[in-house]
Amino acid sequence: MAANAGGLNELTVTEAARAIRDGTVTSEKLTEACLARIDERDDAIGAFAHIDHEYALKQATVADQIRGTGNGIGPLHGVPIAVKDIIDVAGYPNENGCPIFSGNRPQRDATCVAALRSAGAIIIGKTVTTELALLTPSTTKNPLNTSHTPGGSSAGSAAAVADLMVPGAVGTQTAGSVLRPASYVGIYGFKPTSGLVSRTGVLQQSHTLDTVGYFGHSIEDLALLTDCMAGYDATDPASYFASGPNVVELAASKPPLTPSFAFVKTPAWDQADPEMREAFTELAGELGAQCDEIELNGLARVIEWQRLVQLAENASYYGPLQDRARNLLSDELNVRLDEGVKVPVRAYIEAIASRERAYEAIAEIFEHYSVILTPAAPGPAPHLDEGITGSPIFNGLWTYLGMPAVSVPIMEVNGLPVGVQLVGPRRDDGRLLRTAKWLVEHLAQQPATA
Amino acid sequence: MAANAGGLNELTVTEAARAIRDGTVTSEKLTEACLARIDERDDAIGAFAHIDHEYALKQATVADQIRGTGNGIGPLHGVPIAVKDIIDVAGYPNENGCPIFSGNRPQRDATCVAALRSAGAIIIGKTVTTELALLTPSTTKNPLNTSHTPGGSSAGSAAAVADLMVPGAVGTQTAGSVLRPASYVGIYGFKPTSGLVSRTGVLQQSHTLDTVGYFGHSIEDLALLTDCMAGYDATDPASYFASGPNVVELAASKPPLTPSFAFVKTPAWDQADPEMREAFTELAGELGAQCDEIELNGLARVIEWQRLVQLAENASYYGPLQDRARNLLSDELNVRLDEGVKVPVRAYIEAIASRERAYEAIAEIFEHYSVILTPAAPGPAPHLDEGITGSPIFNGLWTYLGMPAVSVPIMEVNGLPVGVQLVGPRRDDGRLLRTAKWLVEHLAQQPATA
Repeated sequence: MAANAGGLNELTVTEAARAIRDGTVTSEKLTEACLARIDERDDAIGAFAHIDHEYALKQATVADQIRGTGNGIGPLHGVPIAVKDIIDVAGYPNENGCPIFSGNRPQRDATCVAALRSAGAIIIGKTVTTELALLTPSTTKNPLNTSHTPGGSSAGSAAAVADLMVPGAVGTQTAGSVLRPASYVGIYGFKPTSGLVSRTGVLQQSHTLDTVGYFGHSIEDLALLTDCMAGYDATDPASYFASGPNVVELAASKPPLTPSFAFVKTPAWDQADPEMREAFTELAGELGAQCDEIELNGLARVIEWQRLVQLAENASYYGPLQDRARNLLSDELNVRLDEGVKVPVRAYIEAIASRERAYEAIAEIFEHYSVILTPAAPGPAPHLDEGITGSPIFNGLWTYLGMPAVSVPIMEVNGLPVGVQLVGPRRDDGRLLRTAKWLVEHLAQQPATA
Repeated sequence: MAANAGGLNELTVTEAARAIRDGTVTSEKLTEACLARIDERDDAIGAFAHIDHEYALKQATVADQIRGTGNGIGPLHGVPIAVKDIIDVAGYPNENGCPIFSGNRPQRDATCVAALRSAGAIIIGKTVTTELALLTPSTTKNPLNTSHTPGGSSAGSAAAVADLMVPGAVGTQTAGSVLRPASYVGIYGFKPTSGLVSRTGVLQQSHTLDTVGYFGHSIEDLALLTDCMAGYDATDPASYFASGPNVVELAASKPPLTPSFAFVKTPAWDQADPEMREAFTELAGELGAQCDEIELNGLARVIEWQRLVQLAENASYYGPLQDRARNLLSDELNVRLDEGVKVPVRAYIEAIASRERAYEAIAEIFEHYSVILTPAAPGPAPHLDEGITGSPIFNGLWTYLGMPAVSVPIMEVNGLPVGVQLVGPRRDDGRLLRTAKWLVEHLAQQPATA
């Protein structure tokens, strides 16, 4: 993946940043290569909602001028990054996958976009989201097989990275909108600990669950994006002080002990693809004594709490749109919002109030295991004919619990990728990525990998 | 009030702590004086739910022994403090004003009780709360006129301090349960910034609104209790890092500029007692150019949001009690909980999500004024025949906004006290108390005070 043999557009985020820093590549050349790839491929894929060559190249030119001065540069200097079309970029369209927002151009960058710019990144364009980042499919195709969905809701961000149009891209996850598409298109996807990356300037569908996440070609890419985007933001109530998480260094280090894996099937296991279940059982076998199958109590309730919270908060945040222009929302979304207003307030508050206790109970597992190992999705990407973006059933519970989760592309089922999801304790994003890196390298050394 | 001429039970918290520190009084003598006053008066007042002479005196004896060693002692060393009967004291009854909790004896101190003990305080006993700290009146009488209510829900804590049974007492406020009783019984009451004092170990009726507060005989008392009880507690999601608020020092200092007052009538003004309104207008007049009447927009919505949040969260937290033993709750409470489950989830979430924006808009006033000046209650304490504890309409909005609020006993209407409420910006508790102290001293110097 993304070896140096190909075009510049095939560089990983980490490789691109290093090449620009070393002076072997200019931001302009790199951005041109990405734009050329987008021009060539995006009619077939539909990853981008808005692209403006001039806007992108102007940033690249400035980046090269700054690099030319010999002054210090940021860790993402000159690297093009794509941003989901629900995240504000100043003066650029942000249409949220919904005609109600047609022509919407925010005045200010979202905090996470400003953080990317501070790190030197080029915002290359906005990627397609499903309608209001929910379940109605977008027209984006899976680059690995265009008759399949790339998943949702961060469909365009996942597809753009998988199709080598851009080294890295930002998405969001409220149930499974980063991990699931990463799994379907065979790339790395990461949802950091809730509160590590600010959500200010991002379309809000659920203040409890919304989380910024991102896609790249390696664990290093995810770590680098984390270090660049993490930061306290007083305008996001979920934000917490995390002074210099320094995830790149931690993720690159060698684990002091061989990591151990708690293989958690979750109550969704029986709904999962039989061949994927088999592949997981093989993977657990390959890990041998380092992996135990663990049954965590209460996960069915956690899945239900996530569902209730999202349903009710969706109805609250999107209800005003529905009140104003019901006809501009899909039938599917109208049904969902109508259902959301009926969530009993007592059940909603119980779901909110149960989160910390549920996390505490589940986090005890990390006294015995490095990470939880579980599917990133119920199987490979569904066919477009099914008219769905796949189920977030393996993701929503960890999102609700605020735990960091990474999808690692190390499995294939029926010719399509399936991600392995690793979940760690809150605020320990660096160690989770270190374990993920260990797993990738360990399996690469094995004689036969599923 | 509480001059040194009377018995030891008449000492303020600050005076008592100083006397014990100086060795002029022992904790045992002080505790005995308080117990004697309780024995003499509490049949008529009904401030205490649980009192155990031996338990109290044992702590006093230990305190005197520690004082005798010459080692360092805490800022509340040997001072008796009473605690509302919804706050856990290890091994002591905590019955929440409700027969469902009859015989309940928690194993651990609430965090705020542990903080009091760390400061050296004696827990003298538990004070009467209204049923589950809500609106159904307790049997406690107002010590200033026993045919009137002391207010609620912290009825016993307010009455015990007002009747000189104990120098200070801890209560809680979800709408107006500290400020209103303080107003009715003519003492100082303080609800600090939400999150400054931990609520872990306190009966939960609303995770959004519940706040610990306390009563004393002076601003110094409130400042001292704040310094002793403030602290970060990871088990309370509202808790925030506040390293050494040092409120005592700040509250005792002279304001660098003469304070200015924003007199805010609120939409509840028209419901207030006419004579109190007149007294307030006089007070504003006395403050002259330092006081402007200000109309804050949107307060009616804030009042409604507080009401909705409390109603829905009450139904969620007390619903399980109702499910289990409806017949052990008052009719009034059953009606309230039945109403609470009907709050539309969208309205509830809107009320939750509006809080920060509402605070930001209101906090702009502090760019121009030191504090908000507003009534602590709609008038003097209602007569017992009315069967109510009075309305928290002047308090709930500030509780919802998480702002610190203090009630200062400087007015009288129809022979009963009425508190003046001062409200400050969040996390600026010390300056609020400093302004309150300035106001008290300023009015004491005036030729005629209302």
